[in-house]
Amino acid sequence: MNDGRDIARTASVGVDLGGTNIRAAVFDDGMEILGRSERPTEAQEGADEVIRRIAACVREALDRSSIAAEEVAGVGVGAAGLTNWKTGVVVLASNLGWRNVPLKERLERELDGLRIEVDKDTNAAALAEARLGAGREFKHFLYVTAGTGIGGGLILNGTLYRGATGGAGDIGHVVVDPDGPCCGCGDHGCVEVFSSGAGMVDRAREMLAGGEEAASSSAMTAEGLSPQTIFEAAEEGDAVAAPVVETAGRALGLALADYVNINNPEAIVLGGGVVRAGRAYTEPVERELRRRALPALGEIVKLVPPGLGDDVGVTGAALLLAESEIEKNGGSA
Amino acid sequence: MNDGRDIARTASVGVDLGGTNIRAAVFDDGMEILGRSERPTEAQEGADEVIRRIAACVREALDRSSIAAEEVAGVGVGAAGLTNWKTGVVVLASNLGWRNVPLKERLERELDGLRIEVDKDTNAAALAEARLGAGREFKHFLYVTAGTGIGGGLILNGTLYRGATGGAGDIGHVVVDPDGPCCGCGDHGCVEVFSSGAGMVDRAREMLAGGEEAASSSAMTAEGLSPQTIFEAAEEGDAVAAPVVETAGRALGLALADYVNINNPEAIVLGGGVVRAGRAYTEPVERELRRRALPALGEIVKLVPPGLGDDVGVTGAALLLAESEIEKNGGSA
Repeated sequence: MNDGRDIARTASVGVDLGGTNIRAAVFDDGMEILGRSERPTEAQEGADEVIRRIAACVREALDRSSIAAEEVAGVGVGAAGLTNWKTGVVVLASNLGWRNVPLKERLERELDGLRIEVDKDTNAAALAEARLGAGREFKHFLYVTAGTGIGGGLILNGTLYRGATGGAGDIGHVVVDPDGPCCGCGDHGCVEVFSSGAGMVDRAREMLAGGEEAASSSAMTAEGLSPQTIFEAAEEGDAVAAPVVETAGRALGLALADYVNINNPEAIVLGGGVVRAGRAYTEPVERELRRRALPALGEIVKLVPPGLGDDVGVTGAALLLAESEIEKNGGSA
Repeated sequence: MNDGRDIARTASVGVDLGGTNIRAAVFDDGMEILGRSERPTEAQEGADEVIRRIAACVREALDRSSIAAEEVAGVGVGAAGLTNWKTGVVVLASNLGWRNVPLKERLERELDGLRIEVDKDTNAAALAEARLGAGREFKHFLYVTAGTGIGGGLILNGTLYRGATGGAGDIGHVVVDPDGPCCGCGDHGCVEVFSSGAGMVDRAREMLAGGEEAASSSAMTAEGLSPQTIFEAAEEGDAVAAPVVETAGRALGLALADYVNINNPEAIVLGGGVVRAGRAYTEPVERELRRRALPALGEIVKLVPPGLGDDVGVTGAALLLAESEIEKNGGSA
């Protein structure tokens, strides 16, 4: 007989909280997805409304999975910004317009006491790659995602390494040109200003404004610029787009070489929308990485694509629940 | 009655293997030094001779401590170079002229089967600071030593983090100027070419050769240059020495900011002969670190001096024995 107290809490929920969309998925204990829900973040409506939307998304995903809240071990959330996983506070998330939002506490209230674990989205993704993706064979790797921005997460000794306050893995702000263009973080010449999608658009716009329009193709106009148009023009050898992409790849390769010299990883898992654009970007990444890293450390590093697709965020978020238990039982903290 | 089999092995030996000197010390279980021995390394006589000298140094330190080999838990060695602590092989040590020397295995033979643990000297020093020095209050810190070269060691989650092959913490080869001067590692613009003692001498020599002798003091001649003469001239506002020291400090600050953004430490323990030269060097280090690091990560980092003096090397080497046991019992590997 089952009186409700000893139902096995074997399902888990993962939430990927991005600047554009909220995605939730319910997983069984084999990490198969039982149901999903997705809706726009509508960050402009404020943190309270976004948190209500997250809760609605979780409830809808549970409904669609025919899973009751009592069967769920908890909800893991990967948030697009610097997040203190110990307190569950999102410290700074520019895409959401958030500063010091106590997401864990507020979501616990919205979801009637369900256990909530919160971390930054790139940590969740790194964890998913470690447990189920390209990182399964490595104990020490850097996960990097290069898209609109550049972020990362660290797996050291087989577990997520978060640093003192949850900021470890912020590879996007390694400086590759001390006198380079201004970055959103306040510093100059961070790899993100060269190698992210937004950075490439900015660099191309600067070159066009600097009078290089004549040499460039008609698709490369300041108004219509996107990473996509830049990659397409670069493939045709465009005089603005080609060097922008080459510089982007080299800058990321240099930042990764710094990472290799500092943390001596076995592998770098390199993903994100910009990376998927192809070899024009990834070839200079790898060339510069090999050229710049200390030979003994650079030779052993494998540069590999991610093993997981679009579900990496929700999967990693759900895995935060188990990782957190490992930590509380005496692992890394 | 004691038949010799159950003598408590409570003493330990630490060896600091540098390019100039070999130092050994015997420690009791409270990490007090019972006896010492020191001799020149004489690296030019080859690895076999150096290893015999290490063994002689260990035996002499034991004699002077009135400690028998049977009372010793083992010998820890901190070697001045990239060292694989798992295999005990010194992979590359330019000051010793060593490449792939199986130090652990050879020293076990020289010392009749005494247990030997080997690691790079900066890892040993980081461990000493973690257990007995400035790092006692931190779980996550970078130990940096800036002397002739620049090296480091990482304490993450309270334990030594060595990376995949023992190279973690090689902060000296973070690139701060991608088109900068050539470094011994084969790359360009590593922080070591600006911020180490040898690097500062090279940069000053370049400036003097570039025709800035007239503006410089008489002490600043290409022949007589040393970190000491540069620091003294810089204090008097010398037109070559002052910018060399300022650039050295700023370059190290930038490299440390990259470290902070990557690993989010609580503290940086900054030591070494160059650092002891004073504020002309450390003030720009700190200024650039605070200016460059991501605000949320930079604000919380403490920049602190080492807690241990000249015995940091032998102390850390002896502590490797206990650390290694922690690892074998299921800690970080």
